[in-house]
Amino acid sequence: MNKNLKDNAAHAKLLELSKAPFDLTEEGALSKQRFSKFRSSAGSLQMFYGTQRVDENTLDALQELADDAGAVGQFKAMISGEVVNKIDGYDCENRQVLHTAVRNVFADLNDSDNIGNSVDAIKAAQEELEKLDEFCKDLACGSIVNTVGQPFTDMVLVGIGGSDLGPRAIYLALKKYAQPQRRIHFISNVDPDDAAGTLDGLDLSKTLVTVISKSGGTLETLTNETFVAERFKNAGLPINKHFVCVTGEGSPMDNPSKYLRTFYMFDYIGGRYSVTSMVGGVVLAFSLGYKNFENFLRGARKMDLNSLETDITKNLPLLAALLGVWNRNYLNCETLAVLPYSQALSRFAAHLQQCDMESNGKRINRQGEELVEATGPIVWGEPGTNGQHAFYQLIHQSETVVPCDFIGFRQSQYGEDLKVKGTTSQEKLFANLLAQSIGMATGSDSDNPNKVFPGNRPNSLIMADQLTPEVMGQLLAFYENKIAFQGFLWNINSFDQEGVQLGKVLANGILDTYINGKPSDESSPTWILMKESGVI
Amino acid sequence: MNKNLKDNAAHAKLLELSKAPFDLTEEGALSKQRFSKFRSSAGSLQMFYGTQRVDENTLDALQELADDAGAVGQFKAMISGEVVNKIDGYDCENRQVLHTAVRNVFADLNDSDNIGNSVDAIKAAQEELEKLDEFCKDLACGSIVNTVGQPFTDMVLVGIGGSDLGPRAIYLALKKYAQPQRRIHFISNVDPDDAAGTLDGLDLSKTLVTVISKSGGTLETLTNETFVAERFKNAGLPINKHFVCVTGEGSPMDNPSKYLRTFYMFDYIGGRYSVTSMVGGVVLAFSLGYKNFENFLRGARKMDLNSLETDITKNLPLLAALLGVWNRNYLNCETLAVLPYSQALSRFAAHLQQCDMESNGKRINRQGEELVEATGPIVWGEPGTNGQHAFYQLIHQSETVVPCDFIGFRQSQYGEDLKVKGTTSQEKLFANLLAQSIGMATGSDSDNPNKVFPGNRPNSLIMADQLTPEVMGQLLAFYENKIAFQGFLWNINSFDQEGVQLGKVLANGILDTYINGKPSDESSPTWILMKESGVI
Repeated sequence: MNKNLKDNAAHAKLLELSKAPFDLTEEGALSKQRFSKFRSSAGSLQMFYGTQRVDENTLDALQELADDAGAVGQFKAMISGEVVNKIDGYDCENRQVLHTAVRNVFADLNDSDNIGNSVDAIKAAQEELEKLDEFCKDLACGSIVNTVGQPFTDMVLVGIGGSDLGPRAIYLALKKYAQPQRRIHFISNVDPDDAAGTLDGLDLSKTLVTVISKSGGTLETLTNETFVAERFKNAGLPINKHFVCVTGEGSPMDNPSKYLRTFYMFDYIGGRYSVTSMVGGVVLAFSLGYKNFENFLRGARKMDLNSLETDITKNLPLLAALLGVWNRNYLNCETLAVLPYSQALSRFAAHLQQCDMESNGKRINRQGEELVEATGPIVWGEPGTNGQHAFYQLIHQSETVVPCDFIGFRQSQYGEDLKVKGTTSQEKLFANLLAQSIGMATGSDSDNPNKVFPGNRPNSLIMADQLTPEVMGQLLAFYENKIAFQGFLWNINSFDQEGVQLGKVLANGILDTYINGKPSDESSPTWILMKESGVI
Repeated sequence: MNKNLKDNAAHAKLLELSKAPFDLTEEGALSKQRFSKFRSSAGSLQMFYGTQRVDENTLDALQELADDAGAVGQFKAMISGEVVNKIDGYDCENRQVLHTAVRNVFADLNDSDNIGNSVDAIKAAQEELEKLDEFCKDLACGSIVNTVGQPFTDMVLVGIGGSDLGPRAIYLALKKYAQPQRRIHFISNVDPDDAAGTLDGLDLSKTLVTVISKSGGTLETLTNETFVAERFKNAGLPINKHFVCVTGEGSPMDNPSKYLRTFYMFDYIGGRYSVTSMVGGVVLAFSLGYKNFENFLRGARKMDLNSLETDITKNLPLLAALLGVWNRNYLNCETLAVLPYSQALSRFAAHLQQCDMESNGKRINRQGEELVEATGPIVWGEPGTNGQHAFYQLIHQSETVVPCDFIGFRQSQYGEDLKVKGTTSQEKLFANLLAQSIGMATGSDSDNPNKVFPGNRPNSLIMADQLTPEVMGQLLAFYENKIAFQGFLWNINSFDQEGVQLGKVLANGILDTYINGKPSDESSPTWILMKESGVI
């Protein structure tokens, strides 16, 4: 039986502990002992959390919370194919949640416990991967070329939400590994300027278009597909030689004769968890090569296996989830800043925004009852050092406490560097990363009140040697699984998104008004606003 | 005498009113009368705020607050050159705040009241504008060309914080107006991959580099300048024929023989308010042409003039500031989402993040006393309709209330559009914009608790006909002045940024450790973390 956070035995302990959380500002608080105790690692990732406001008692209580809530058991149920996307007693999606299956395709990364019902999902994933591998080989050997026999150099992804944010974030993160002369472009917004601006200057004759919609009915995506197809038609280029499709089997878009290739995703993969499926696969494999995409999946699979550990100091996503719950529910912090010290991760926070907020921005539990506890935080962030010159002022000196996830890599991707004033850029980057983590924790005193830093800004430092495809896969799954664990702890369904429906219904009403020239109801606020704002 | 928010007579009234704020979810609440009453306009912008939780009594109290705080008087003092960047009795920057002077250069947009002490600043701005105009003409007529007589096609901006975010946001916003074959690229992060990735594939022989640092000593920028210069040297290209400089007169970078051209900014212009100065000027005029940059300034100037109105329903930035204070201090909302329904504004929220959070993320007042009232919100956001498919779930259905600024334009920039399912993309975009504003306000009920939308999410709708250079200037200054007004109301100094210092000091200590191979203090947390995390 799934319990609300407050109904776990550990809740009262945590509440008590939160009255006097560990004080990071005390002289000597950040000792060698503390840093060597409060660190964990999994695969290529290490997490240093001595700069969180926790002590051993807090960790014990968090372990108890995880055990009492059966967090790892719930994760196992999810990956083995139980129908966890549901609300008891109420109409809901009632689906399995099996995005983990699409990376459970490595014979050397097996785990006998967790295959369970997901055998079919794994098999389906393997079939799509084989199709993708073949697609890449056909591009490489020249059996897929344009109408005048030239190789394709560019790919435009048409998709929105999970069909855009994840692929975009990961492509930018791994662009260093892209094959020469293979570029990806993105059209997501129904704003016609997005498509017009993106197509501006592209050589369509050498461009593939990948259209992604699980349902095959996403209005923005269908509209943009039509917009782009119109351009191809006007240029005399055949759609079925240029357009690739990623959709659910049997969806309105599932019409292989219309497309050069068709790849499938499945109803048990939510959009925001789909970047390791063909949603990410087509653009990433086109750009980075199939092997790099496979390594990305390998990293994600490793982190899924790590997520089966019951000891929270060994299970990185679960530990991060619990620290997040501590900050959100016991220290009452409303947001989480994700601050990668890596320009390659410039859009990673935007992807996590969807992954986290669409999953856990909920207010009812899995029994349909309104919760009194806070759920998912507002996630935001930009790369450091840029953010330091932007919003860190507020984090350091305002009364609003913002927990931070710092992310850093010991080596750069390009390996091109030089010394200025005695240190390399990479050293400067890392110096800033470490300095911010420490500074937010310890704060600093002064006789000048304007130079006082209150400190006690909780943060974690997530580190790896280098941002490679495999490390990216680990980092992605670290966050995906952290978010799932938090949903389990909060007793919410992290896998539906009813909150997007009202806007759709109201927008459709307005579109009918555009078509009919008049509203169905003259007293509706949308109609009044249309009139008053002069848009009609 | 500057008063704290709580010391204004209106404070008690607002507190009382906040116990029962206007209920947007009541049947008929969003009436024609309400929408036509709660709207204001200035220049090309209109703001609809019937979807905020205010009624006439709230507005009266907010007007009283503005009057009592002398908000407009403080704005006048600022633009006429009073030293407002200060903390009484404590060491501070003690500077004028005159970013408004750089757009006070239009004979037809004069206002006899507000010139005052800023005559010198206006004159200096005019001189820089003349230099910029000449630079553009020299590029156009071919007197500035590369070493083999070809025109320059690309410009790389090297700068960080205010020298990056503003220029980048506005360039992307107005890219439609760029001259053919003039592209801008940005290097900001000290992450060496930022420079390496950006330079990858650029034809340096046709590339200008604009280096921007007011102090002439920003470490990230100097490092990246050296990185880029190294590439030019290796390519045998002379720095002083390719590099342009924007800096403070007399700064270490002020060495005209080193640069093709040198432009000045001034110590009375803060980085985050500098996009209308030469900081934005060089890249925007290179790309959009001088005339478009001038129109951008014209828009900003118009909004500055609007900001002199004492009636809050006529002063758009002041009205927005007061609604923000209402949401922050009386309805206790910690964040503000800026949601432009315009892909061109994809980085506008990132710019506002700096502008707002670095200005108002403070906890002491202008007398050096710690405040009990909340100050600046966390600002975040992404363009709609993209955000709808990402984080709107949380805004609609979680318990965390997120006030939203919706921004929209009645016409697209490119004018390329087509009908799909009976409506154009532009109509779909607008339908979604209006639907979200209404839906967040009214919410929606259901027997299924998972389909309940609580509503009462306060939001404003900021609209114009089209995102032109002049409208962009208005929108920018609308936010700049809104932020300044909020600082006046909160009685904080919005113009310094002491909160960035601690990180710098700690980072410099770490850099010394890198150079010396050992720390000055072995018990310092930064040294311990360096060792424990294996970065040294």
